[in-house]
Amino acid sequence: MSEKAIPYKIYLEEHEMPTQWYNVRADMKNKPAPLLNPGTLKPMTAGELGAVFCDELVKQELDDTTAHFDIPQEIRDFYKMYRPSPLVRAYCLEKELGTPAKIYYKFEGNNTSGSHKLNSAIAQAYYAKQQGLKGVTTETGAGQWGTALSMACAYLGLDCKVYMVKCSYEQKPFRREVMRTYGANVTPSPSETTNVGRKILAEHPGTTGSLGCAISEAVEDATTHEGYRYVLGSVLSQVLLHQSVIGLETKAALDKYGIKPDIIIGCAGGGSNLGGLISPFMGEKLRGENDYRIIAVEPASCPSLTRGKYAYDFCDTGMVCPLAKMYTLGSGFIPSANHAGGLRYHGMSSVLSQLYDDGLMEATSVEQTAVFDAATKFARVEGILPAPESSHAIKVAIDEALKCKATGEEKTIVFGLTGTGYFDMVAYGKYNDGEMQDYIPTDEDLAVGFAGLPKVDL
Amino acid sequence: MSEKAIPYKIYLEEHEMPTQWYNVRADMKNKPAPLLNPGTLKPMTAGELGAVFCDELVKQELDDTTAHFDIPQEIRDFYKMYRPSPLVRAYCLEKELGTPAKIYYKFEGNNTSGSHKLNSAIAQAYYAKQQGLKGVTTETGAGQWGTALSMACAYLGLDCKVYMVKCSYEQKPFRREVMRTYGANVTPSPSETTNVGRKILAEHPGTTGSLGCAISEAVEDATTHEGYRYVLGSVLSQVLLHQSVIGLETKAALDKYGIKPDIIIGCAGGGSNLGGLISPFMGEKLRGENDYRIIAVEPASCPSLTRGKYAYDFCDTGMVCPLAKMYTLGSGFIPSANHAGGLRYHGMSSVLSQLYDDGLMEATSVEQTAVFDAATKFARVEGILPAPESSHAIKVAIDEALKCKATGEEKTIVFGLTGTGYFDMVAYGKYNDGEMQDYIPTDEDLAVGFAGLPKVDL
Repeated sequence: MSEKAIPYKIYLEEHEMPTQWYNVRADMKNKPAPLLNPGTLKPMTAGELGAVFCDELVKQELDDTTAHFDIPQEIRDFYKMYRPSPLVRAYCLEKELGTPAKIYYKFEGNNTSGSHKLNSAIAQAYYAKQQGLKGVTTETGAGQWGTALSMACAYLGLDCKVYMVKCSYEQKPFRREVMRTYGANVTPSPSETTNVGRKILAEHPGTTGSLGCAISEAVEDATTHEGYRYVLGSVLSQVLLHQSVIGLETKAALDKYGIKPDIIIGCAGGGSNLGGLISPFMGEKLRGENDYRIIAVEPASCPSLTRGKYAYDFCDTGMVCPLAKMYTLGSGFIPSANHAGGLRYHGMSSVLSQLYDDGLMEATSVEQTAVFDAATKFARVEGILPAPESSHAIKVAIDEALKCKATGEEKTIVFGLTGTGYFDMVAYGKYNDGEMQDYIPTDEDLAVGFAGLPKVDL
Repeated sequence: MSEKAIPYKIYLEEHEMPTQWYNVRADMKNKPAPLLNPGTLKPMTAGELGAVFCDELVKQELDDTTAHFDIPQEIRDFYKMYRPSPLVRAYCLEKELGTPAKIYYKFEGNNTSGSHKLNSAIAQAYYAKQQGLKGVTTETGAGQWGTALSMACAYLGLDCKVYMVKCSYEQKPFRREVMRTYGANVTPSPSETTNVGRKILAEHPGTTGSLGCAISEAVEDATTHEGYRYVLGSVLSQVLLHQSVIGLETKAALDKYGIKPDIIIGCAGGGSNLGGLISPFMGEKLRGENDYRIIAVEPASCPSLTRGKYAYDFCDTGMVCPLAKMYTLGSGFIPSANHAGGLRYHGMSSVLSQLYDDGLMEATSVEQTAVFDAATKFARVEGILPAPESSHAIKVAIDEALKCKATGEEKTIVFGLTGTGYFDMVAYGKYNDGEMQDYIPTDEDLAVGFAGLPKVDL
């Protein structure tokens, strides 16, 4: 490591910001399995995908050989409004823990969406605009993605329709107002406005919704209205491509100070943050240039990597989307309503699923109360009030730092702090009142989801 | 102006951050009038002030000749967690307005308190800790100050009691949870826990509270409990001293690119942001080195500079605090509950009042709906969702930029974007639903407040 003193926050200069996204699939020997047409069980063609997604995004989705994609100038300009995000040295957390470990976090919460989601939202909205579309539809769980997309659409003058998972819609009324302030149309899901929504409501009248269900509604809306396409905030390979900006900035900031991380930690729901954060590091690992421990952290209540099956599955509850091969709990799995915030998705990005299956990264799951313990400790010493999702990574970063304290090792730990918790105060309130509950599905609970996995024989 | 391209965001390097605060009073020929003992009507002595405030802060409060105060290292370290704040070039807003003006804003919202208030909170908590106190008491209106103080106290391990203006407590339940997450004790004001609170409740049973009333309660709590002192987030000269870090960073960032502003705009409630932002510029103006147009923007519903009287007045409704000479609406003035967010204080910092009275700065008032129009426009093009308070400055910055459009002048406008609106979604919701109301007090309304002004004959 260089002798240069490391500041609390490392900001890249504007001219040091990435000009290209990095596509980790290009360096993978075992490519992620292709998306399948749910009817024919054959790989989805560009034409078929084009009915749902913008053309340029379809190209990105299908391209697993091109390593670098230029970031269009208009997107780079938008990035300059809120990026580069700081890479923060957690001096205060280190001191609080009394650890010899060096802890860094890439903080993606300094924008109004409150998370990293904006990195892909602006890209997807941009390509929709380029294609001359009227607008886009999407789902949102915790609300960050919907807010991000609303912001991107407001900036570009596109119409934006958001299906918001009902329990989040009710727990986070202010999220809805932020989206409305950015001009979006927000509907709680399941809703009466789509066929699939009506069907789910008829079958499960009391449901608090799920991402899988909201996805189905948004896809139906897009494919039944002229001039609309569907966009998705996670899971897809195109999203990981856009989110690589997180990892590229992180790596550039570390390189500037000659720092090599030992452990890289990210929370994982659909995988957009984790995939983005680790991309360039995983690339080095795949090319044999460097080695890193990479840890995905998921909630014990929705443990797709740690307890799921690696299989083809529906991406959505309504089974209108392509099938993806991924670690999954089954599209019928709906996490307990006790579970706060995002990371509720039943499956995991195909890219990350393949990397995990190849033993290139680890995964662990953590319980909700322990996550809020870590979040509160972090907030009090580092100032930032973290999102519950991000706090999964904090929890494991603290655990790893405490292991270093026990062994005396001076490891360098980097984690992704994906966002802020300003809209999660209902959950924080429950925690503050000692009313937070943990939930771990039993094997029987999981069996229900697994039973619904489609039979795919390639 | 240098040929160097100006980035979207100018961040100072850590080593470029201010190491001293600047005390604008040192350069004022007409010093602000001293605080008076409400009993004797004589200037408050250090001993008298020491019963309410920490000793070191009393020194800062009374010192109107020392131009520079060293910022203690522990405070500088805390500043590094969330500062320097960016000076943003509003390229997107300029484009949206089609103005030749160059617009910059100093954005203080990138920390969990959501505003600039943290700059003084950590300073005041630090000196309380230095003095060996158990804790501090305070009031909060919109909640930013209470959150900021909670954060500072959590960091330093001090007890923190916050009296929150009742209408904000009810409009912003999540603010309370943030403060509780940082370990603070939050009480809606007026409350039954103090004599002054009980008295106010008896006289005005339905009151939604006011900052002046919450101040009285917090002061009573501090002075009746061993090991506690009262701290205040605005109005006082010590607060303006700490907040000078905003202006010093702004000036350093501008100087780095050879930019000289023509107009500097800030919202003004008690004056902490405006006073901090303009301090170094006003210093140059006072020393005859440079000239700037400086504009204070206040809500039409609480117009202390534009419609108040320059007179000695009580700082609090309960009349337990020292008297200050300031532009004031009278301590009995309580703005309409329709009014969103902060800037509800009946008076204005003595420093700013004197500068205004000396013709060194302008003041203007704006109505609420127009403020939210500006806020929404700003949010959609610049990404950041602004606090209603900050949006007062946005409104006038836009007005000035449109004047430039009309005249073709390429003026450089700098405004203070004091914070984010994440906790103001009730107000945004009303605006989104078209239910926002403007309120302008009549002369008769104001006469009630003026009638309560104390008779002070020095």
